[in-house]
Amino acid sequence: MIRGVLSILLVLGAVFTAFATSKQYFPKSGKRSPQTLSRGWGDQLIWAQTYEEALYWSRSRNKPLLVLFHLEDCPHSKALKKVFANNYEIQKTLDEDFIVLNLVYETTDKHLAPDGPYVPRILFVDPSMTVRADITGLYGNRMYAYETQDEKTLLANMQKAKKLLKQEL
Amino acid sequence: MIRGVLSILLVLGAVFTAFATSKQYFPKSGKRSPQTLSRGWGDQLIWAQTYEEALYWSRSRNKPLLVLFHLEDCPHSKALKKVFANNYEIQKTLDEDFIVLNLVYETTDKHLAPDGPYVPRILFVDPSMTVRADITGLYGNRMYAYETQDEKTLLANMQKAKKLLKQEL
Repeated sequence: MIRGVLSILLVLGAVFTAFATSKQYFPKSGKRSPQTLSRGWGDQLIWAQTYEEALYWSRSRNKPLLVLFHLEDCPHSKALKKVFANNYEIQKTLDEDFIVLNLVYETTDKHLAPDGPYVPRILFVDPSMTVRADITGLYGNRMYAYETQDEKTLLANMQKAKKLLKQEL
Repeated sequence: MIRGVLSILLVLGAVFTAFATSKQYFPKSGKRSPQTLSRGWGDQLIWAQTYEEALYWSRSRNKPLLVLFHLEDCPHSKALKKVFANNYEIQKTLDEDFIVLNLVYETTDKHLAPDGPYVPRILFVDPSMTVRADITGLYGNRMYAYETQDEKTLLANMQKAKKLLKQEL
């Protein structure tokens, strides 16, 4: 009888311990929404997490890479994000023909900041791993910047990037 | 009158064009769920996206960094993920005292692979940017691997990592 009670207590103890360690954690400040890799720039796109990952995909799938530098609390980034995420043609072309990466921190590759590390800034990289510093926007002082009215320039530059370097040779 | 009709047509045209370019894009294969930065390892944690970002946070907040390498289709990674994400103590400690980063690709920093690039693998980095190669798991051939039953070892190692190097000196 005592053995039986002890066994039950042991089982209950084990169940309780298992329950206690597998209890779901929520911060004191309240439940958070999971962070997205898109950060609002297109939830339907498949985003690379890091530059290394993006380069690997670009090479193995022979697709150009679009690298977008932005900051979540920068008003220019926010304004461009709205246009970028809601432009059907930009999103469709990126999904079908590009590898995409958005970053809120600089990488160690200085080739991704040909004229400095400002945001928002868009660089294209060829599958041969060459940064396409020749594909620029409309502003001489910030050559890789795009403003909200530059959707057509961006689309035209995406078409340029789709003509891969090795096919040009 | 004709002018009026023309104006209306122009306005309608403009509205239609605006509508057409801002139409939301969904891939032919169907709507996708947005990717999460947690990749299932703890939706309540605030994950860094890149190693550069994680190092910056670690230094500026004086918190140790946990770097977790995994693969989404690796059964050992999946099993550990379940334990890791559901362990209240691990999640709470990481949220309060650590900077966290999970990666599915290697970085260019070879210090993060002291005995090779296997997964799953967990490395700690001190805010002084020193990789803590001295904080190891239980397996001699894969020193930074953890299995599902190693929750206590992981928690003990997290406590070691919390004793910052400069405080030891």
